[in-house]
Amino acid sequence: MSSTIEQSAVTVLGLGPMGRELAGAFVDAGLPTTVWNRTPGRGRDLIARGAIGAASPEEAVAASELTVVCVVNYDAVDAIVRRDAVTAALKGRTVVNLSADAPARAREAADWAAEHGIGYLDGAIMTPTVTIGTPEAVFLHSGPEELYHRHRAVLDVLGGTHTHLGPEIGRAAAYDIALLDIFWTAMAGYAHALAVARAEGITARELAPFAKGIGAILPPIFEQEAEEVDAGTFSGEDNPLTSAASSMAHIVEVSESHGIEANVMRAVEGLTRRAIGRGHGADGFVRVTELLNPR
Amino acid sequence: MSSTIEQSAVTVLGLGPMGRELAGAFVDAGLPTTVWNRTPGRGRDLIARGAIGAASPEEAVAASELTVVCVVNYDAVDAIVRRDAVTAALKGRTVVNLSADAPARAREAADWAAEHGIGYLDGAIMTPTVTIGTPEAVFLHSGPEELYHRHRAVLDVLGGTHTHLGPEIGRAAAYDIALLDIFWTAMAGYAHALAVARAEGITARELAPFAKGIGAILPPIFEQEAEEVDAGTFSGEDNPLTSAASSMAHIVEVSESHGIEANVMRAVEGLTRRAIGRGHGADGFVRVTELLNPR
Ligand SMILES: NC(=O)c1ccc[n+]([C@@H]2O[C@H](COP(=O)([O-])OP(=O)(O)OC[C@H]3O[C@@H](n4cnc5c(N)ncnc54)[C@H](OP(=O)(O)O)[C@@H]3O)[C@@H](O)[C@H]2O)c1
Ligand SMILES: NC(=O)c1ccc[n+]([C@@H]2O[C@H](COP(=O)([O-])OP(=O)(O)OC[C@H]3O[C@@H](n4cnc5c(N)ncnc54)[C@H](OP(=O)(O)O)[C@@H]3O)[C@@H](O)[C@H]2O)c1
Repeated sequence: MSSTIEQSAVTVLGLGPMGRELAGAFVDAGLPTTVWNRTPGRGRDLIARGAIGAASPEEAVAASELTVVCVVNYDAVDAIVRRDAVTAALKGRTVVNLSADAPARAREAADWAAEHGIGYLDGAIMTPTVTIGTPEAVFLHSGPEELYHRHRAVLDVLGGTHTHLGPEIGRAAAYDIALLDIFWTAMAGYAHALAVARAEGITARELAPFAKGIGAILPPIFEQEAEEVDAGTFSGEDNPLTSAASSMAHIVEVSESHGIEANVMRAVEGLTRRAIGRGHGADGFVRVTELLNPR
Repeated sequence: MSSTIEQSAVTVLGLGPMGRELAGAFVDAGLPTTVWNRTPGRGRDLIARGAIGAASPEEAVAASELTVVCVVNYDAVDAIVRRDAVTAALKGRTVVNLSADAPARAREAADWAAEHGIGYLDGAIMTPTVTIGTPEAVFLHSGPEELYHRHRAVLDVLGGTHTHLGPEIGRAAAYDIALLDIFWTAMAGYAHALAVARAEGITARELAPFAKGIGAILPPIFEQEAEEVDAGTFSGEDNPLTSAASSMAHIVEVSESHGIEANVMRAVEGLTRRAIGRGHGADGFVRVTELLNPR
């Protein structure tokens, strides 16, 4: 395995915050690493550390068996790779696309790759840039099993855990969408909480230890609620929707009393009240999952 | 200390899921525990375990130096304690109000208590019912220091960590509002993610391990972002608002393509785009805190 890695050259297209971390991990592992970015100059530090700067994406992809693409979305991916020179240079090679987008876009990209004789794997990175190269990084992959196993050793250089979710190419993007839904919604709750806290004379640093406590109770709750959602049972025995709605109303009221808009919590409360209105007031909060997506 | 506890009688008003846990912890610790609930019958199990069932709230509060109230909100608290017989029976005693509501209601309750010679502490419980009596429970308190220290030994019977946030009576409720803002917003993100995942053929149990991973990355991010918010710096070096907005748009698009409304994420994206529109696209997400509550 390690001899495979030592010989493996890798190309990274896209040197935003994440692309730079990925390329840096390859360089640190001693892999011949070629980099390219639309806006020049972003690879300067990487080149100083030993990466090879390519003058064009076609030159970049020609340098390695494996190309990792990590840009803002698939429109950006397409703008880079769907040009004749790049597509031709990729023939017979493999692309691992670690950019985030909708599952349908991943399927479309796989079709395009198949048409042009390009190996294609789709993936998603579920952790921040600082985790790359550490055990905390989390990567999801989907696409042809054989292709995944062929490049697995190189991907492992990025650290963390890698999970292959199956051959259906849209799978990683589907997980990504769901998980980013949790992440960005939670971050919006936190930013809003900091705004409300400040209006109440509480600094972010004062709130943070308790906010971390809230973060810490989420994982076991997520696990328990998942069982209920799959089972279609929504026991509110410990915490009924009516009690949740009461808390939500207080949050909206206190926010707005300080002139802080509460559009997000208003939407959350609205959903909760709709579930109560349909007679589910004694159920637990995850009952709203059924309202959003009835079986 | 322990002799003090052994002699301490305690009354619990409100036997919802949380009130029952609190009363159960007192009973388990061997404290003479008197219970009352608006709807009769909720204390049956507790009485079987040794609690004393009172026929009225005035009888209940007369039985102990300390009364813990834990009902849905302060309207419910008022409906119980602001009746002449109860108010009179509370004179010279102490109420610890562990019901959730707005800080203004806590201040109002303290004024009422002072007028009637009743000691008053306000508190909030930041963890689910299952944590009561365990090291995981988190309690916040505010109000007169002396009163808090007098009753601290009894409160400790509830387990977990107790933090006195200072004499300002509204402080615990203010923290509570901010922390529940995080909690319920995050839960809404999770319920929505489960709905979207299901539409993509992913069960809750399949998503849960990765959802737990997202939960696990939140606490360190909360800590780091708190520093930035207090400092008024919003470095988007690792993850700019423009990148976040792109992800949010994908979440809305994928949800709605499945007929799943995305009101919450639409509100989050709207906030993000407003910040970008004001020229903060290269900043980090917590910049929206400034938009919500400008200094
Ligand atoms: N940062 C994180 O913490 C994180 C965590 C997990 C996943 N991700 C994902 O990783 C991917 C990359 O994110 P990022 O943090 O590096 O920053 P980003 O802001 O999402 O992406 C920046 C990269 O996209 C390129 N780009 C944008 N539009 C382009 C276009 N039309 N044509 C060519 N290139 C274009 C940029 O090139 P220019 O320099 O020329 O603008 C730059 O290389 C995203 O899908 C993101 O969701 C990021
Ligand atoms: N459950 C949790 O996980 C949790 C966690 C942290 C904090 N809390 C907080 O703890 C408090 C109690 O919550 P809970 O979970 O026990 O359930 P809850 O549904 O919030 O409250 C139920 C209790 O409120 C009483 N009540 C409601 N309206 C009343 C009224 N008008 N007059 C008198 N009593 C009234 C109910 O009496 P009846 O039985 O007669 O209806 C019952 O005792 C809430 O403020 C909640 O936010 C709960």
